[in-house]
Amino acid sequence: MEEIGSSKASSHMHGDQTLYIHKVGAPPKKKLVNEIKEAVKDTFFSDLSLRHFKDQPGSRKLVLGLQAVFPILEWGRDYSFHKFKGDLVSGITIASLCIPQDIAYAKLANLDPQYALYSSFVAPLVYAFMGSSRDIAIGPVAVVSLLLGSMLTDEISDYKNHDYLRLAFTATFFAGITQMALGIFRLGFLVDFLSHAAIVGFMAGAAITISLQQLKGLFGIVNFTKKTDIVSVLSSAFSQAQHGWNWQTILIGVSFLTFLLASKHMAKKNKKFFWLSATAPLISVVLSTFFVYITHADKNGVSIVRHIKKGVNPISANEIFFSGKYLGPGFRIGVVSGVIALTEAIAIGRTFAAMKDYSLDGNKEMVALGTINIIGSLTSCYVATGSFSRSAVNFMAGCNTAVSNIVMSIVVLLALELITPLFKYTPIAVLSSIIIAAVAGLVDIEAAVLLWKVDKFDFVACMGAFLGVIFKNVEIGLLIAVVISFAKILLQVTRPRTAVLGRVPETSVYRNIQQYPEATQVPGMLIIRVDSAIYFSNSNYIKERILRWLTDEDAKKKENKLPRTEYLIVEMSPVTDIDTSGIRAFEELHKSLQKREVKLVLANPVTVVMEKLHASKFTYLIGEDKIFLTVADAVATFGPNIELP
Amino acid sequence: MEEIGSSKASSHMHGDQTLYIHKVGAPPKKKLVNEIKEAVKDTFFSDLSLRHFKDQPGSRKLVLGLQAVFPILEWGRDYSFHKFKGDLVSGITIASLCIPQDIAYAKLANLDPQYALYSSFVAPLVYAFMGSSRDIAIGPVAVVSLLLGSMLTDEISDYKNHDYLRLAFTATFFAGITQMALGIFRLGFLVDFLSHAAIVGFMAGAAITISLQQLKGLFGIVNFTKKTDIVSVLSSAFSQAQHGWNWQTILIGVSFLTFLLASKHMAKKNKKFFWLSATAPLISVVLSTFFVYITHADKNGVSIVRHIKKGVNPISANEIFFSGKYLGPGFRIGVVSGVIALTEAIAIGRTFAAMKDYSLDGNKEMVALGTINIIGSLTSCYVATGSFSRSAVNFMAGCNTAVSNIVMSIVVLLALELITPLFKYTPIAVLSSIIIAAVAGLVDIEAAVLLWKVDKFDFVACMGAFLGVIFKNVEIGLLIAVVISFAKILLQVTRPRTAVLGRVPETSVYRNIQQYPEATQVPGMLIIRVDSAIYFSNSNYIKERILRWLTDEDAKKKENKLPRTEYLIVEMSPVTDIDTSGIRAFEELHKSLQKREVKLVLANPVTVVMEKLHASKFTYLIGEDKIFLTVADAVATFGPNIELP
Repeated sequence: MEEIGSSKASSHMHGDQTLYIHKVGAPPKKKLVNEIKEAVKDTFFSDLSLRHFKDQPGSRKLVLGLQAVFPILEWGRDYSFHKFKGDLVSGITIASLCIPQDIAYAKLANLDPQYALYSSFVAPLVYAFMGSSRDIAIGPVAVVSLLLGSMLTDEISDYKNHDYLRLAFTATFFAGITQMALGIFRLGFLVDFLSHAAIVGFMAGAAITISLQQLKGLFGIVNFTKKTDIVSVLSSAFSQAQHGWNWQTILIGVSFLTFLLASKHMAKKNKKFFWLSATAPLISVVLSTFFVYITHADKNGVSIVRHIKKGVNPISANEIFFSGKYLGPGFRIGVVSGVIALTEAIAIGRTFAAMKDYSLDGNKEMVALGTINIIGSLTSCYVATGSFSRSAVNFMAGCNTAVSNIVMSIVVLLALELITPLFKYTPIAVLSSIIIAAVAGLVDIEAAVLLWKVDKFDFVACMGAFLGVIFKNVEIGLLIAVVISFAKILLQVTRPRTAVLGRVPETSVYRNIQQYPEATQVPGMLIIRVDSAIYFSNSNYIKERILRWLTDEDAKKKENKLPRTEYLIVEMSPVTDIDTSGIRAFEELHKSLQKREVKLVLANPVTVVMEKLHASKFTYLIGEDKIFLTVADAVATFGPNIELP
Repeated sequence: MEEIGSSKASSHMHGDQTLYIHKVGAPPKKKLVNEIKEAVKDTFFSDLSLRHFKDQPGSRKLVLGLQAVFPILEWGRDYSFHKFKGDLVSGITIASLCIPQDIAYAKLANLDPQYALYSSFVAPLVYAFMGSSRDIAIGPVAVVSLLLGSMLTDEISDYKNHDYLRLAFTATFFAGITQMALGIFRLGFLVDFLSHAAIVGFMAGAAITISLQQLKGLFGIVNFTKKTDIVSVLSSAFSQAQHGWNWQTILIGVSFLTFLLASKHMAKKNKKFFWLSATAPLISVVLSTFFVYITHADKNGVSIVRHIKKGVNPISANEIFFSGKYLGPGFRIGVVSGVIALTEAIAIGRTFAAMKDYSLDGNKEMVALGTINIIGSLTSCYVATGSFSRSAVNFMAGCNTAVSNIVMSIVVLLALELITPLFKYTPIAVLSSIIIAAVAGLVDIEAAVLLWKVDKFDFVACMGAFLGVIFKNVEIGLLIAVVISFAKILLQVTRPRTAVLGRVPETSVYRNIQQYPEATQVPGMLIIRVDSAIYFSNSNYIKERILRWLTDEDAKKKENKLPRTEYLIVEMSPVTDIDTSGIRAFEELHKSLQKREVKLVLANPVTVVMEKLHASKFTYLIGEDKIFLTVADAVATFGPNIELP
């Protein structure tokens, strides 16, 4: 063990040059317990969240622990009136945006409007105490509302049935439990398995599905399909063109949709119009409600909200199905919607954290979101999470801390107590146009174009999710996205790249001869780089691929009357790990090479690989003098004389 | 595009040294169609099986096609009498081994003995025409028989019911379909997902489970549990110690078991005893049958085979469930047992192919095995595959080609026609001892010890599969093995390694400072190597890990009053690929670094990565002059003056 424990330089005479050949070092072996401890730490506590707790007295640990659970205790101490000004303005702004949005989103989940408002009161309040993002705005969101609505309707198709509401609370409860569990068991990294590309496609598909659903409200159609796929929805909408459409409704819907989209567009071009776009939904609601009230348009077939229950959230703890036939479906729906809600919140949180350069603890966020939804499910709320459109407005309006969420929450509370009856005459069409305007931003064509340009596989994942959502439903879209993402990972670990290396002229650097056409191969040698950890899933492929390179190259050399390959150098730098199957494959490779009278040489195995090659005695099998620090060292030792610069 | 299309050397003055700084090259862009074509080729046709077909006339293509499906047409032309001698001897040897083993294995599957003999007649015959391994011996095997028996009994617990037999044929049919489909769609690489480690554990567990099942035959127990877990079996065996054990049976069983194990042990120590060990099972059967016949031991409670149907396989095509309630279970059992049978055959085939250094086409093997089982299911056979113990005997007895399988098949046919009635008095106990002796070799303690030494995670996978099999059942063991194997891959792609690099003294080589403690860091710079492709599953982790390295190192530098980090060099050699999430992560990293006034520099991005960085305009974002061929070049450009040797 000692002899490979430290690296030694030995001068080596070759031709007329003195070269320093370094032995490949392996660090002192760690104890098993420490090894496992480090692996666990790096996998589950990669954010080093426990670091602060080290070497602290007990009382300090308690304070730190409380601060870890309630970040408000930490940032609250530095809170100032100056910060509050920004939070107040942004809080009121997002409240004005969230009230009309909420009423609309509740429709997507087939719930009465007040449940979304309840969620916008409780959730942001809890988040302000537990969340670590400063910019996110919490509440019901379009995609999760749609997902929930579609999954709940699959279980209980009559959404006027009280059990439907109870199942919604049950799903919300389990969504919270799922989110909290992921956070507590530090499995937050699982969220990363939904790739960015898949999310782009999924979101765009959901946005289009949601917009299509709004045709019902926008055209005033009475008998509308319950399915969400594009074919059913369009045929349902246009088959009713003669007798189902209501021109007053269309007039209201289209004019306000134009206003909303125009204000958004203007704000994008010119920041001066930001406030107009932020308050446009509220303006639309106020104007349209007033218009319907004075014209009695509701008597002419314009659907209106009709009834929103006044007052604060009732307790709903006793409504949750903790047993019976709806427990299973409730759990399943909760897990799916919880994960989607989480993915959205984490993506938003990270985006804004990167913009302001503060760090976000993913696991802590999950615990916070889980708590929100558990408390929410007990107080008549449904799944809440970070809303992209409202968070962007929050950020633009100059929020400084999560206090803006508290402000929003208080405004929503006041609205619930005082002004909900005023929404009675709000036309459904205007809510539909608010939804369309809100989700339009989720269709990110530029991002899709970039995916196409940069990575075709990512584009496929994106389109798979997109088409799955619009042609089938949200769950199928999700499933496709996850399957394609996994397939990509599996493909990577099954069919890694290999490359033949050549010497870049006037250097001792060896690079892929396809990437650097001027790089030249060394006579009598074949240098191959393996671009992946060697595991059971690819060990056999790598072995056969290397042998195929050898066969191909020797055929070429024979044609050109060059000397045959005597040394096969495997550049191991990118081989970050190897397992027992990998070592077996190398043993078999060694055996095959022996039959062909080719010597196997390894260059630069990393620490773990070196340890394992040593433990399995493979280093003795090929000879320790066949392992080098660099390809250049190996070539210098066995190869023809090369003049270095 | 042009400017990165070729690599250019520019001489660069630094201090008093002239250095050649090479630009990082990217090869001319391939067309999308070609790119996809190459990816498909490399994933599914990595063995280049279609290479021979290129540029050949039609008739030649037909011949090549036939040869591809029936390799016998290829190797048959060079067949000689000399080769036949070896095949004849080995064929007879494995037949003498397979007849007693088959009778015993049929019991594991709860089938009458003749069905295993049928399988040993049809399967090797078909394989000889279609298979490409020269050493494998085809027939029923212990593990698959056990798996089949346990899964079939779960569906139909009364194995005397005729439906049980029909379900066995159905499962065999679908096992064949599965194997053939995997081969035709070239999904053979999926078999690699059962890691070597998992197979070691699974096989050992199955061997112990199978041996424990033999306690019934060995002790002559009448009422025996149907469960296969170790607890049920042992308690069942010992609760019947008083009245259930039969001393004559135990005497026969234990003495022949001793003989069989001793002959195996002797053959291992000294090759002279190979023939004894190869024929020991047949000797045991003949001796014990004769002994029971003359002593009438069957009257004293020694169980005997009693009845084996004489004659050749009847047709069973009409017995398969192509509809009805058993179609689903039959399909499921078929898929599972088909995959396991495949895994075993491929592992054996590869082992012997590596020993004799010929190549084995995995996909072709699967088609051959699939055909065997489809034809088998129509002719009263059950799932057959490569047997490890018989293949080893085949190899040792000097087989040259698959003709040995034909010889075996003919001998089995003769046995079926002529001598099966003689097995009437064969005691079950001797069959049990033959099974135990055969599966004993599957418990590979040395391999498990090596797993522990080399790779702890592999050992966990091995033990998981092992304990799952012995404490629960074969399916659970399999499931555990697959889950752990996948978890390992996911862990690898989620939490890749990163390392801080330093310069190895007297070289321009930069290596992990933990592996090479004498390597020194460059003042004002932090060099980090990322050891994995950067994908959505790890991009965020990598970004945060790099920032953490920076924070930690800067804290250390501050303590030691060293200059703070101004340049962060990311060594990209092991980054074999990047996707859009990865690029986003780098953009975020770049933004965070800008806030900290640290410049991001990349060293040696590989072709694909360079292409993608370019397509996404990331190269413009950080500046093309920040991308170098080697770390040394980057240090030479931005770093302090370092004297190179």
